[in-house]
Amino acid sequence: MVQETKFSIPRAHPRYESLKMRELLIDGADQGIVATSGLIAHGRGEAFDYLIGERSLRNAIEAEKVAVASLLLAKLPVISVNGNLASLMANVTVNLAEVTGSLIEVNLFYRSRARELAIERVLKQSGAKRVLGIGSNASRIISEISSERRRVDPDGLFSCDVALIPLEDGDRATALRKMGKQVISIDLNPLSRTSQVASISIVDNIVRAFPRMVRIAKQLKSVPASELEALVSRFDNQRNLAGILEAIASRLTRLGENHQ
Amino acid sequence: MVQETKFSIPRAHPRYESLKMRELLIDGADQGIVATSGLIAHGRGEAFDYLIGERSLRNAIEAEKVAVASLLLAKLPVISVNGNLASLMANVTVNLAEVTGSLIEVNLFYRSRARELAIERVLKQSGAKRVLGIGSNASRIISEISSERRRVDPDGLFSCDVALIPLEDGDRATALRKMGKQVISIDLNPLSRTSQVASISIVDNIVRAFPRMVRIAKQLKSVPASELEALVSRFDNQRNLAGILEAIASRLTRLGENHQ
Repeated sequence: MVQETKFSIPRAHPRYESLKMRELLIDGADQGIVATSGLIAHGRGEAFDYLIGERSLRNAIEAEKVAVASLLLAKLPVISVNGNLASLMANVTVNLAEVTGSLIEVNLFYRSRARELAIERVLKQSGAKRVLGIGSNASRIISEISSERRRVDPDGLFSCDVALIPLEDGDRATALRKMGKQVISIDLNPLSRTSQVASISIVDNIVRAFPRMVRIAKQLKSVPASELEALVSRFDNQRNLAGILEAIASRLTRLGENHQ
Repeated sequence: MVQETKFSIPRAHPRYESLKMRELLIDGADQGIVATSGLIAHGRGEAFDYLIGERSLRNAIEAEKVAVASLLLAKLPVISVNGNLASLMANVTVNLAEVTGSLIEVNLFYRSRARELAIERVLKQSGAKRVLGIGSNASRIISEISSERRRVDPDGLFSCDVALIPLEDGDRATALRKMGKQVISIDLNPLSRTSQVASISIVDNIVRAFPRMVRIAKQLKSVPASELEALVSRFDNQRNLAGILEAIASRLTRLGENHQ
């Protein structure tokens, strides 16, 4: 690999957040946590975030609220963790699991013993007591999925009723939906297969969405279940996604007009 | 780095071109030609290409024609090559240089002796007779640029009148413009600083743009200089870019409407 010179990014830099994420992922790649295709996927996310305006759209915040309600109502909610998420947000992932009572399961497209152990280590260092989906614990196979993502833990993703799958591929999102699970995706591309098939599609950057979801969960914990159920049942995911596309399109139109 | 299983992509696969590019870049990273940040940059390009519809827009084809005319008219045209370009399009780059009478110069954000030699080797294997900007030949410094991209060859980018800079960063595009050069960019993001400051901004995928530019160059070679000059002087880059933004925005609006 090409050795890239490290430089410390000043906090005041206008692109601090974006450059910081890039640095964390490059570190993750060096540590064998982030896959090469995870770096390319991150770039796709950067582009969509740029189009969105690098802020959370109103519809995204609404989807986040509904997603948290759904996690709080679930019998067995599971948060799926891959290399990019572990590199960017291990601490906040553990917080979100705690406050929503969710389990954490490692699930990788490119699975190797060393890689799953490296991710488990990062999560445990961030305070996770239990990490599912490691080694022989990922013993159940979802046959519709052809990649290593097919391996799931019988105590976790296999049995869960609600699966939060940030930074996911379309095949697995589709398969989990077919298994009858409520699927919450976090994906900056509103047109991706994952966003299209999920039950609740959060189109937002994980580094903005996850900390906000922790705050929302703390607020919603004391709200009666009937109110949370009303929140979830009122939500129209397709309409929410259409609103996101409209917001991006009108931003591009505005930017285009500034050129003329 | 995470070891990723190689699989042979069937030609009939609907995403063949895209997956093939990804594979070439991952190979390039393994060979020390492509930088980690080059992989992330490629992901950004993938996302914008997706929004464009993975085809060359009419405005892009117009910009390509004008760019070729400009290269043919130049006294000293230079094509700048980085790791991504060398991995994706070494052969076609050499063809384009030949047919337009351009020089080829290696210019890298993360420069190392090993990396420049690896890229020089790929270009020479593709038929390049002379590759500028290697080792001590990159002896001139453009002081406005803070990265290693500041090093240029006195016989090439330093002296050229027209610089074709595919897959470039905004700092260098700006610096080259300030030096009075005509700058031709190829960048899938119409809003990037590079696209914004270039004299001729081609918003297209390099794997579609470069082969077309070779074909255009063969046609335009026999056209009188006065006609080529008319082509270049009639071209309005800001209007061209605005048209690209409009095309993306209206595609997004259409896709959004299909959701409702």
